[in-house]
Amino acid sequence: MVFKYNVILVNNNSHIMKNKARVLIDCKDQKGLVYKISKLFYKKDLNIDSNQEFVDKKSGRFFMRSVVSGNFDEIELENNLRKTIHKGTHLQVIIPKKKKIVVLVTHESHALGDLLIRHSAGHLDAEIQAVIGNHSSLKQLVTRFDIPFHHVSAENISRELHEDKMKKVIEQYPFEYIVLAKYMRILTPQFVDTYPQKIINIHHSFLPAFIGANPYKQAFERGVKIIGATAHFVTNDLDEGPIITQNIIPVNHRFDWKDMQKAGRDVEKSVLSRALALVLNDRVFIYGNKTIVF
Amino acid sequence: MVFKYNVILVNNNSHIMKNKARVLIDCKDQKGLVYKISKLFYKKDLNIDSNQEFVDKKSGRFFMRSVVSGNFDEIELENNLRKTIHKGTHLQVIIPKKKKIVVLVTHESHALGDLLIRHSAGHLDAEIQAVIGNHSSLKQLVTRFDIPFHHVSAENISRELHEDKMKKVIEQYPFEYIVLAKYMRILTPQFVDTYPQKIINIHHSFLPAFIGANPYKQAFERGVKIIGATAHFVTNDLDEGPIITQNIIPVNHRFDWKDMQKAGRDVEKSVLSRALALVLNDRVFIYGNKTIVF
Amino acid sequence: MVFKYNVILVNNNSHIMKNKARVLIDCKDQKGLVYKISKLFYKKDLNIDSNQEFVDKKSGRFFMRSVVSGNFDEIELENNLRKTIHKGTHLQVIIPKKKKIVVLVTHESHALGDLLIRHSAGHLDAEIQAVIGNHSSLKQLVTRFDIPFHHVSAENISRELHEDKMKKVIEQYPFEYIVLAKYMRILTPQFVDTYPQKIINIHHSFLPAFIGANPYKQAFERGVKIIGATAHFVTNDLDEGPIITQNIIPVNHRFDWKDMQKAGRDVEKSVLSRALALVLNDRVFIYGNKTIVF
Amino acid sequence: MVFKYNVILVNNNSHIMKNKARVLIDCKDQKGLVYKISKLFYKKDLNIDSNQEFVDKKSGRFFMRSVVSGNFDEIELENNLRKTIHKGTHLQVIIPKKKKIVVLVTHESHALGDLLIRHSAGHLDAEIQAVIGNHSSLKQLVTRFDIPFHHVSAENISRELHEDKMKKVIEQYPFEYIVLAKYMRILTPQFVDTYPQKIINIHHSFLPAFIGANPYKQAFERGVKIIGATAHFVTNDLDEGPIITQNIIPVNHRFDWKDMQKAGRDVEKSVLSRALALVLNDRVFIYGNKTIVF
Repeated sequence: MVFKYNVILVNNNSHIMKNKARVLIDCKDQKGLVYKISKLFYKKDLNIDSNQEFVDKKSGRFFMRSVVSGNFDEIELENNLRKTIHKGTHLQVIIPKKKKIVVLVTHESHALGDLLIRHSAGHLDAEIQAVIGNHSSLKQLVTRFDIPFHHVSAENISRELHEDKMKKVIEQYPFEYIVLAKYMRILTPQFVDTYPQKIINIHHSFLPAFIGANPYKQAFERGVKIIGATAHFVTNDLDEGPIITQNIIPVNHRFDWKDMQKAGRDVEKSVLSRALALVLNDRVFIYGNKTIVF
Repeated sequence: MVFKYNVILVNNNSHIMKNKARVLIDCKDQKGLVYKISKLFYKKDLNIDSNQEFVDKKSGRFFMRSVVSGNFDEIELENNLRKTIHKGTHLQVIIPKKKKIVVLVTHESHALGDLLIRHSAGHLDAEIQAVIGNHSSLKQLVTRFDIPFHHVSAENISRELHEDKMKKVIEQYPFEYIVLAKYMRILTPQFVDTYPQKIINIHHSFLPAFIGANPYKQAFERGVKIIGATAHFVTNDLDEGPIITQNIIPVNHRFDWKDMQKAGRDVEKSVLSRALALVLNDRVFIYGNKTIVF
Repeated sequence: MVFKYNVILVNNNSHIMKNKARVLIDCKDQKGLVYKISKLFYKKDLNIDSNQEFVDKKSGRFFMRSVVSGNFDEIELENNLRKTIHKGTHLQVIIPKKKKIVVLVTHESHALGDLLIRHSAGHLDAEIQAVIGNHSSLKQLVTRFDIPFHHVSAENISRELHEDKMKKVIEQYPFEYIVLAKYMRILTPQFVDTYPQKIINIHHSFLPAFIGANPYKQAFERGVKIIGATAHFVTNDLDEGPIITQNIIPVNHRFDWKDMQKAGRDVEKSVLSRALALVLNDRVFIYGNKTIVF
Repeated sequence: MVFKYNVILVNNNSHIMKNKARVLIDCKDQKGLVYKISKLFYKKDLNIDSNQEFVDKKSGRFFMRSVVSGNFDEIELENNLRKTIHKGTHLQVIIPKKKKIVVLVTHESHALGDLLIRHSAGHLDAEIQAVIGNHSSLKQLVTRFDIPFHHVSAENISRELHEDKMKKVIEQYPFEYIVLAKYMRILTPQFVDTYPQKIINIHHSFLPAFIGANPYKQAFERGVKIIGATAHFVTNDLDEGPIITQNIIPVNHRFDWKDMQKAGRDVEKSVLSRALALVLNDRVFIYGNKTIVF
């Protein structure tokens, strides 16, 4: 695996590198936070390439994403930041590199296909470790790209047993996120709890409209003039997890629900790809049931 | 009142005019409908300026909107069409002219203001007969435009009595539609039944998301990344009437619900104006709980 | 090859089939056209599944696209229509089936990849016969999908010679359209004239803004807040051919031209796919330098 | 005039107020800028309510907009900032309040009307001092809102003389921006130079497409599928000034240029209002021929 963004200059002191890091801070708001953090960067001779902050006034929560560059050791930088900011802070110093993901699918190829093409062009900021399908329909497509495909059938076995089998496959791989690219089964709380804030789903409606099964049929019955898609983190409440991004397309009376489904594919795949680009670049903070997206 | 589109040539036979008409047909589908109707137009020497059809396959319903021009008497044309098409057909021959509307409001001026400016420029295909407010806040704005404003307070009286008072005011005026331009009270079934398919509302969410009170607060709590507005005909089911048009705008974590409300004003007013342009030009058929929009 | 939409009932008289056809008519406007055409359909016992007309008032040109179903022989139907409508009419009776296309590419994989994924899922209304690249970069991607890839290098040879070599490859295949999926060379008038109204290009700007080389650089220099993409038929005037469809995405001061290029990929590929869906379903008429899109 | 956002607490030292300020900084980039500025805010016990920075890498230019609150004297704060940051910095400490504007118009009322309605509701972050028309068509509309209207006819006089007359009227009023709300005359370099970075125009196309006269006619002739509007600062190059914001709407072959013009009104007025909201809240930096919009 190759680091994408880093220019690594190994010198006598092998810990010190000319480097870039994303510094993510999520803590109780306090006067002087920007000052203290930017002081540390200044004293350590780091350049701030970009910087975004947000304070949730209601809850008094502070969020910051800085990209810094310079000669630093990331563990030392993280330790210094910990000393600078008050306790209880969520703090991450991340050296940008491609994250590892596992993808879950069922029958439909549009969202998966979009990921495969981006991956194959080096345009996805992730390395697809494997694709797991509860059906085997997408095996051929995945293997075309020399990526492992695992068929874990859910037929004639309990939901729990199926998920146990999936976990066994998933955990053969290193991964940071599990991506549901039109995986059409509901996950149990047990499964979701195993991977908190790690599962990203594409739902085929502009949530909270049309929660649950067959949103296009629901949309058709309601006679809406726009349909949409929502990428969100998965929590135990069906279709209720923190929303990362959403988009819509117009429809009209000429669309039956299958036309909506067909038209919806394009917005589904683009919303999922957009959400992944944000998450994989460490631009998304989860706070309660919402996201802060820098 | 002046006809907008008509060139009226009164000749010896005063019933025969060089004219334009919108022919609206809504009936059970049947082989040969387009043929029979276009044959009549041809035999009567009418030109088809534009023509749109739609067949709802599930229910076998046929919808058609033709704009024809030529020398005709509209009553005779309607009678001829009735003889041509099978019984039970909803048939209208409409000479294009500005329709009359009454507008109901509460406190907010953006949707009303947009209508007033369009009206004043001759860009609204309607004549605003009067504006009725359950508060008096918008009186000054309305009277600036020399349009009657009626304050019908709902304070300290029953919902039924309030609506009776409103009806009395409304019925002083000729009107074809009642427009709820951010009228913030729920109408009773009795009121709605009095004016079936005649009441148009702007709802401040992309329905069916966030039905009911304060949709912006609901949207904020849910952490959505898009908000919207929906123009619909009012039926007895709250926010469940046939949707005419919808639109959305993006929001992000920096928007609290008041920011959403502020941003939402622009999409509310443009969606309402768009819906009115469609309805006032006889482009909207209501069928069950849906609309066909040509 | 399999017909996608047709239900073919071969009976004793093998010419007569239960069938669907798209009837495309493009002629001088005349009173009674709709009547005459719908009369023929009625007399032949054909059902009109959908029907769209447009009259270009300035030029007096009539365009019509009908989808009819019933028992008919398409050659007989076309002959009957020819007798019905005046001479000089462009008339086509098309039995819906997947059209054959040849795709030209250079280095970038996003537009091509989107076509390959759709093709592989049966969602593209076309059969990709072959992909031709002036570089070999995309060979691996294409061959993953078992589609022939031809590398026709343009290096060290004249433009004419290069195009001659391409023509030889292209004409090994049956095809109805040539799709330029980010083919980054300008075609000569000779080449374009060989395939009139048959070459579809995706241009990476909202034409007519930023004609010519590197539109993203131009857009960046100008400081625009939206960028776009345009799918159009290729004529001899660079980037001046009839536009099929366009779309845009917002950008801001944080985008340098490479960020614009990266963001632009998604709109490029979706605009090209949308344009192809329209053209391949015979929904696009070319008239002068414009399109009518039903 | 009333301050909108300030809570002013007059205490013994009348210069010290509990206050909010927008701090705008535009200077050569330098390591430690964020640190130095946030240090000053911290030492002065000011809270950072929001903060946005941008570095233009190509030119090495740093832009920052902070909103701070606390007890401060704005002149003292500005002086302290000047000492902190290097020379040659554009620095502004702005106490948020409604800015004063003068509006120039010709015949069309949609953009002006939108401003008047917002103004009348207190939703425009500006006080309209006066409206000046080169025709008198909009006099009635403006006077309905008790705002001075001046008719400065351009007929039978030189461009220079006309602009001299306009300047005399404009300069009767205090103002920070001149807003061209569909003012349909080209301004001379002399006029533009008198008010650098102070004139905001709404152009009826998505620039740089369709520069110059009648963009809707140009758009129609080209057969585009989207039309747009652009709000920009006026410089001496026609339609070439820094773009603030743009938006588009879809059109199709059924639109002749007058339909485009009609449809375009809505996007024109919303783009102008959006641009003004940004400028009036001090969110727009001009840099060369571009804008940075926070």
